[in-house]
Amino acid sequence: MSTPAGVTTFRRAWDDLAPVGRDGCGAGYRRFAWTRTDHTLRQWFAGEAAARGLDLVVDRAGNQWAWWGDPDARPGVVTGSHLDSVPGGGAFDGPLGVVSAFAALDVLRERGVRPARPLGLACFADEEGARFGVACAGSRLLTGVLDADRARALRDADGTTLADALRTAGRDPSTLGPDREALARVGAFVELHVEQGRGLVHAGVPVGVGRMVWPHGRWRVDLRGEANHAGTTPLADRHDPMLDLAAFVRQVRDVAVAAGALATVGKVRVEPNGVNAIPSQVTAWLDVRAEDERRVREALTALAAWAPVEESWTPVTWFDADLADEVASTLGGPGLPARGTGRVPLLGTGAGHDAGILAAAGVPTAMLFVRNPTGVSHAPAESADEADCLAGVDALATTLAHLLTRDAT
Amino acid sequence: MSTPAGVTTFRRAWDDLAPVGRDGCGAGYRRFAWTRTDHTLRQWFAGEAAARGLDLVVDRAGNQWAWWGDPDARPGVVTGSHLDSVPGGGAFDGPLGVVSAFAALDVLRERGVRPARPLGLACFADEEGARFGVACAGSRLLTGVLDADRARALRDADGTTLADALRTAGRDPSTLGPDREALARVGAFVELHVEQGRGLVHAGVPVGVGRMVWPHGRWRVDLRGEANHAGTTPLADRHDPMLDLAAFVRQVRDVAVAAGALATVGKVRVEPNGVNAIPSQVTAWLDVRAEDERRVREALTALAAWAPVEESWTPVTWFDADLADEVASTLGGPGLPARGTGRVPLLGTGAGHDAGILAAAGVPTAMLFVRNPTGVSHAPAESADEADCLAGVDALATTLAHLLTRDAT
Repeated sequence: MSTPAGVTTFRRAWDDLAPVGRDGCGAGYRRFAWTRTDHTLRQWFAGEAAARGLDLVVDRAGNQWAWWGDPDARPGVVTGSHLDSVPGGGAFDGPLGVVSAFAALDVLRERGVRPARPLGLACFADEEGARFGVACAGSRLLTGVLDADRARALRDADGTTLADALRTAGRDPSTLGPDREALARVGAFVELHVEQGRGLVHAGVPVGVGRMVWPHGRWRVDLRGEANHAGTTPLADRHDPMLDLAAFVRQVRDVAVAAGALATVGKVRVEPNGVNAIPSQVTAWLDVRAEDERRVREALTALAAWAPVEESWTPVTWFDADLADEVASTLGGPGLPARGTGRVPLLGTGAGHDAGILAAAGVPTAMLFVRNPTGVSHAPAESADEADCLAGVDALATTLAHLLTRDAT
Repeated sequence: MSTPAGVTTFRRAWDDLAPVGRDGCGAGYRRFAWTRTDHTLRQWFAGEAAARGLDLVVDRAGNQWAWWGDPDARPGVVTGSHLDSVPGGGAFDGPLGVVSAFAALDVLRERGVRPARPLGLACFADEEGARFGVACAGSRLLTGVLDADRARALRDADGTTLADALRTAGRDPSTLGPDREALARVGAFVELHVEQGRGLVHAGVPVGVGRMVWPHGRWRVDLRGEANHAGTTPLADRHDPMLDLAAFVRQVRDVAVAAGALATVGKVRVEPNGVNAIPSQVTAWLDVRAEDERRVREALTALAAWAPVEESWTPVTWFDADLADEVASTLGGPGLPARGTGRVPLLGTGAGHDAGILAAAGVPTAMLFVRNPTGVSHAPAESADEADCLAGVDALATTLAHLLTRDAT
């Protein structure tokens, strides 16, 4: 018996992507938006689309769409994810959804599925926001949640604006903006993603269905001090913002515990950052999320004395409940409960996704999660067994087949 | 009456240097070793030497020496400092000593002083260690305290080695190493420096004489954690090294107070430093100094659980006591006590200087300090009134005239 198309596709695509953007030995991936590495990844996506005879469209936000069938005939079913990463990121967050999209398409064709509507494969630009600080920038621009002027002015750590980065990547930044035409083509969206947690490990199944995305936001805290020489300034005369950072980090954890939220200080900038210089300023970034907005607000209220400046805020996003139930009851196969028993786990997630942005824009949206033995994400230890990934491809293909052929008229 | 040579020289040189390496509006100077900015500063030094008919010599460590008279006739008197800066540094730390050296030479010539020994003007390379992490690298290499192989392998924040930086600057890194010939020419060394503190403000005089450099060192502390997604990892499952940083910074201050030492965490590196990523590692650099070594060791012992790795250590350095007394009793002039009353303040300093490295290598060494109204150093607020700077030039010229003509044989 020959190897099924999904398996072959998955393995080959995974091998293609493995070397792109490796961030040094054992340090994971660094695949920042609109870099040379990102260009390589986008070229790969375009090549996979071309190899399958799909029509490639790039929308005004820079997201890539590969269409099987005429996307303007009627609203399509879209699946996909992103290929960029955080610094030191894992191999799965993003690429697993894109690779599974191609693999699922090949499964559908092998199975002879005849879609009643077009199928789109999507690769969203700059999902992690690792370079310019705004997560899901591609889908936020597409839906109009992120203002194009604000986006163009965003700067990376080197001071390069998004507008300049787009120009360097050969794109015209003046085209940035909401793209109603591209969005109108999306009748339903399904994103497959590695689980960022161990819910499926505890449930003992390889695949689950998304229920909601936790409300989450990012805040900046500016801790100002007075620069001075570390070797000559008496302790009593110092205004050392590093001590404020210490107090802030400690309080953030205490507040998170009290509020039942997740709160993290993961990024810090020290100026001038010299061994023998008392810092003039320390800037800290705060990430807060919780199952409900009340807990997030409770944490922020407790931290109000630090004058946190909101950089982004995303309210709770519920995925389409009917679609989630429909998907869950459709699934079945290796390692999953029997089809229709409804025992596929429904999961909430603390991580933001393009699927959440599309759902908030009114697109019926579902997410599939693939088991992650370590539960770790955004780090090299992020992982998924190949068997579980292939169960994910199978679940995605089953879901797409269902959505592409239901109420065929 | 025409303006005296020292005043003219000082003003012109100060204007020459003011625009070089400005780090943005109000942010001070960024004059890192072996950069384009550094090249401009070295060219300026060479030009000033040439304009005065001095012979320029660059030693094996890259330090510049401009000689008036034959440096090999007999050991000379040398004065000077450095032109590099910390990030966000002030205008005075380093340049004041170099500019004053040229101005003092012009004063000596105007006064018709006939030296009995050669006079050298020195510009030391990479005094701040801001780029490669080792302070006084030029004088440490010269005297052999810094091993040439270790120096060549030092890396800056971009990963560039000192060897590569030297090549880019047009120098052959294989020549790095102790330079006995250059060192043997230094019969005595006098470094003029802006005071980094307010001792002279309290004493009410514009110029003081150095007594000793506090023992001081730098240590690195590696705080290892486990990278993970900030939005999905339960607090209880985290190994977040940012919390360790907070505890470390707090303890450093407490320990410093208890030991009567100065201890500072001024530089921090967070990996991967993403807003939504729990850090995999935080690295903190610790600077500790005190009037005596016992206090430094007491602080380090109290911090032993953090396993600090020593990156540099400089024991207490006493300047030549006879020379200091001689200089102090020679001084007199505008704003200073009457010559010979011995009331010129003798100051200790917590900052390291090339003068300290030369003193430790056995060179009779003195330091002159110029009053700093803010007491601030290593920051844009570092300052000195022009009148005090000119009093410094006068004091330096008087000191040099004394040293150049005493026991003339």
